[in-house]
Amino acid sequence: MNFADRLDAKVREKGSPCLLGLDPHLALLPEEFSVAADPTAPRGDRAGAVADFLCELTDLCADRVAVVKPQSAFFEVLGADGAVAWERVVSHAHSRGLLVIGDVKRGDIASTAAAYATAFLEGSGDPEDPALCDAITVNPFLGSDTLDPFLEVARRTNKGLYVLVRTSNPGSDDLQEHGEPPLVHKLCEHVTRWGEETVGECGLSSVGAVVGATHAEALAELRGRLPHTPLLLPGFGAQGAGPEDVKPGFTDGLSGAVVNSSRGIAFAYRKAETSDWRAAADAAMDEMLSGLRGALT
Amino acid sequence: MNFADRLDAKVREKGSPCLLGLDPHLALLPEEFSVAADPTAPRGDRAGAVADFLCELTDLCADRVAVVKPQSAFFEVLGADGAVAWERVVSHAHSRGLLVIGDVKRGDIASTAAAYATAFLEGSGDPEDPALCDAITVNPFLGSDTLDPFLEVARRTNKGLYVLVRTSNPGSDDLQEHGEPPLVHKLCEHVTRWGEETVGECGLSSVGAVVGATHAEALAELRGRLPHTPLLLPGFGAQGAGPEDVKPGFTDGLSGAVVNSSRGIAFAYRKAETSDWRAAADAAMDEMLSGLRGALT
Repeated sequence: MNFADRLDAKVREKGSPCLLGLDPHLALLPEEFSVAADPTAPRGDRAGAVADFLCELTDLCADRVAVVKPQSAFFEVLGADGAVAWERVVSHAHSRGLLVIGDVKRGDIASTAAAYATAFLEGSGDPEDPALCDAITVNPFLGSDTLDPFLEVARRTNKGLYVLVRTSNPGSDDLQEHGEPPLVHKLCEHVTRWGEETVGECGLSSVGAVVGATHAEALAELRGRLPHTPLLLPGFGAQGAGPEDVKPGFTDGLSGAVVNSSRGIAFAYRKAETSDWRAAADAAMDEMLSGLRGALT
Repeated sequence: MNFADRLDAKVREKGSPCLLGLDPHLALLPEEFSVAADPTAPRGDRAGAVADFLCELTDLCADRVAVVKPQSAFFEVLGADGAVAWERVVSHAHSRGLLVIGDVKRGDIASTAAAYATAFLEGSGDPEDPALCDAITVNPFLGSDTLDPFLEVARRTNKGLYVLVRTSNPGSDDLQEHGEPPLVHKLCEHVTRWGEETVGECGLSSVGAVVGATHAEALAELRGRLPHTPLLLPGFGAQGAGPEDVKPGFTDGLSGAVVNSSRGIAFAYRKAETSDWRAAADAAMDEMLSGLRGALT
């Protein structure tokens, strides 16, 4: 089954378009995992604490999310030990029946692009390796020819790609909206074309787009330009967007988009000013899901 | 000493603007390292062979290059074991007195961008860790605000950044030349501004730009727009550019740019149709250096 159909089935099964972002800012982890931020501790212990926290967070939310999205930067801070933690976290999410979108934002040319795609989607040995992702985020800046190797690997493995189209940061218009017509329109044409071959039975393609939920008007317009493209919507919660802001990204009920929350769930205990991070994450997860169900169904 | 001055001093010391690209395509490694491409071999053994090859290649060329540039994609193919190999290769290059530019092309927003910068330039523990890079390549697509965290870490650590401005692939004009004036002009303004604070005694900044040597006319024009920006020029050798093509990228003799060759050195034995990869790499390195010295001095 292709990625788009697997994702849509998982969203329907869970009744949830929630995407749990796994962004382990070392300094924000709960007290019991504080060794992660201790520069004097052995790096392996620090990375182990990161993985322990994220696996438990995944367990806590597994009944209410379809997908998790580990963010590679926070693992890379811990070097090779961080890479071990990444593999453990991805494998654990799969063992809980969740899909995994690797938020790696890779982009390069020719055989280098192919190597990145292989690294995360195909693997160098066992293609059933549970540490492989179901999809990754990719950066198109190097040009449309540089997506071809990613597309080839994704097609061969029935995996997905999410192309950065309009990011959630305040300055995303700087390059993405440059020109007339703006660059983002050209990107939408590319994304539609790249996705044509992999439109699944659900009517959506395995080539998705990242569109920040922080630009509500732009989201509605881009959804119109990308009728068969599954969207990944960052910007919910901590970055300011709410359930009504993300609604224009969906195509049919809970289908057509997944909504990311990272800090808003994982570090809810800091906002709630409690040391009980489990209860705070649990409540934040409930609030996110009920808010989205209310707006979308 | 800031990165720009360290780089310029190293180029003068070696009398070489050559940048040895370390791109270990698993399938292209010489016979004695062929375990690297064997999917049935333990992944640690495969990664060990990659590091063995690259360390020996570095030794072979260390007297004729100022800098090496490991390409992260080919390490990531081997997952956490590849990350161990990366750290070994970076440390080894430093032990030989070479600078290291990590070709990671990372780009993300806010604290995630900061985490990538920390991962490669600052480290999570020992700031003198030999596995840290002297500079990295970064992707500016997410917007100028997303470079701020990279710039902050680079300034704090006296390290460098190379911003992708015009890449060497055939389709690089797709997004990079979009609009009127083209996007690349806006990027040049950004790069100049980002670099103003870190112009060293050599007259060059620690914020550099990647400009493909495969676009000879564009290179001359971009050098004019970036008078204080050190350039990293890919596209030499295997991708087609020669010594005369890269000359417009330099500012003064051997200063102002470093020229990358990866496959052209590492896998010269394949083109030379010999099994003696050491002799072939040695000859290719000599040819590159004498060609550049001839064109530039």
